[in-house]
Amino acid sequence: MNDITRLDPGPRMSQAVIHNGTVHLAGQVGAPGGSVTAQTTAILEKIEALLARCGSDKSRILSATIWLASMEDFAEMNAVWDAWVDPGNPPARACGESRLATDELRVEIMIVAAQAG
Amino acid sequence: MNDITRLDPGPRMSQAVIHNGTVHLAGQVGAPGGSVTAQTTAILEKIEALLARCGSDKSRILSATIWLASMEDFAEMNAVWDAWVDPGNPPARACGESRLATDELRVEIMIVAAQAG
Amino acid sequence: MNDITRLDPGPRMSQAVIHNGTVHLAGQVGAPGGSVTAQTTAILEKIEALLARCGSDKSRILSATIWLASMEDFAEMNAVWDAWVDPGNPPARACGESRLATDELRVEIMIVAAQAG
Repeated sequence: MNDITRLDPGPRMSQAVIHNGTVHLAGQVGAPGGSVTAQTTAILEKIEALLARCGSDKSRILSATIWLASMEDFAEMNAVWDAWVDPGNPPARACGESRLATDELRVEIMIVAAQAG
Repeated sequence: MNDITRLDPGPRMSQAVIHNGTVHLAGQVGAPGGSVTAQTTAILEKIEALLARCGSDKSRILSATIWLASMEDFAEMNAVWDAWVDPGNPPARACGESRLATDELRVEIMIVAAQAG
Repeated sequence: MNDITRLDPGPRMSQAVIHNGTVHLAGQVGAPGGSVTAQTTAILEKIEALLARCGSDKSRILSATIWLASMEDFAEMNAVWDAWVDPGNPPARACGESRLATDELRVEIMIVAAQAG
């Protein structure tokens, strides 16, 4: 029996885990050292690619949790987010400040989504 | 097909998203500048109102994640929380410190709940 | 009707909440003042014990959210995590820095898991 599907399993984590029609993505980050715009753009591209592999897409995101290394970057991150989000299907969202794994990482986004029905 | 219901969808987020009997609320905050007691009270009122619109209530909260701008406010937030939580049905909970979108916001609470069966 | 099961309900939270085959654990912490290794080890033991009581186990973890009081402890926490995680079934994971309820707490881990099918 395996009712759980894991994408890109590694020694520390999987990039996506699917169970009972719900997709849990690992916290996604961009290339260290890039601008907040560049990192956010890269993160959202990674999220789209992972969701596609899970049989989901950005219109089916249930919740997004966003960590910023500095809340000073809130407006810059939001500009990318607002242009990307599906305007008819925005998720629940929360955004807080949290220092990330390295200081060159400015943004991390965690997603819970629904598979296509 | 739409098996996902979104409440108060805006350009950035929805306030609640329902899928497969599970309710995901956006991070709720109170009025900027109010006391921790006032902000926590307002947040819990908003959560109750959103859950009611989702066909749920505080007895059906599965998990709560609480961010405090300063952990110095832990006791003050908890006093409001402890008086509010359904004593027969407390959720899983975690509380960490995270600077929020503006410095006048002291508390943010994220909820996952079950719709009525 | 009760389609929600709560383990160790207290005045503030439950340690685990089960609904619709999904297990939500409260944020787990170790003994205050212990090393990061000791706290992480204790946390993972608590998680295993809670999951067992929920009819789940570490091979069925869907996502893990890790808060570190200081990101300086990332490598020390990861050494314990990497040795513990089910190598065939790693969860989605995110790790951020967040000051915890007391300064003697260095690590807190939140788990969402699937019950056995």
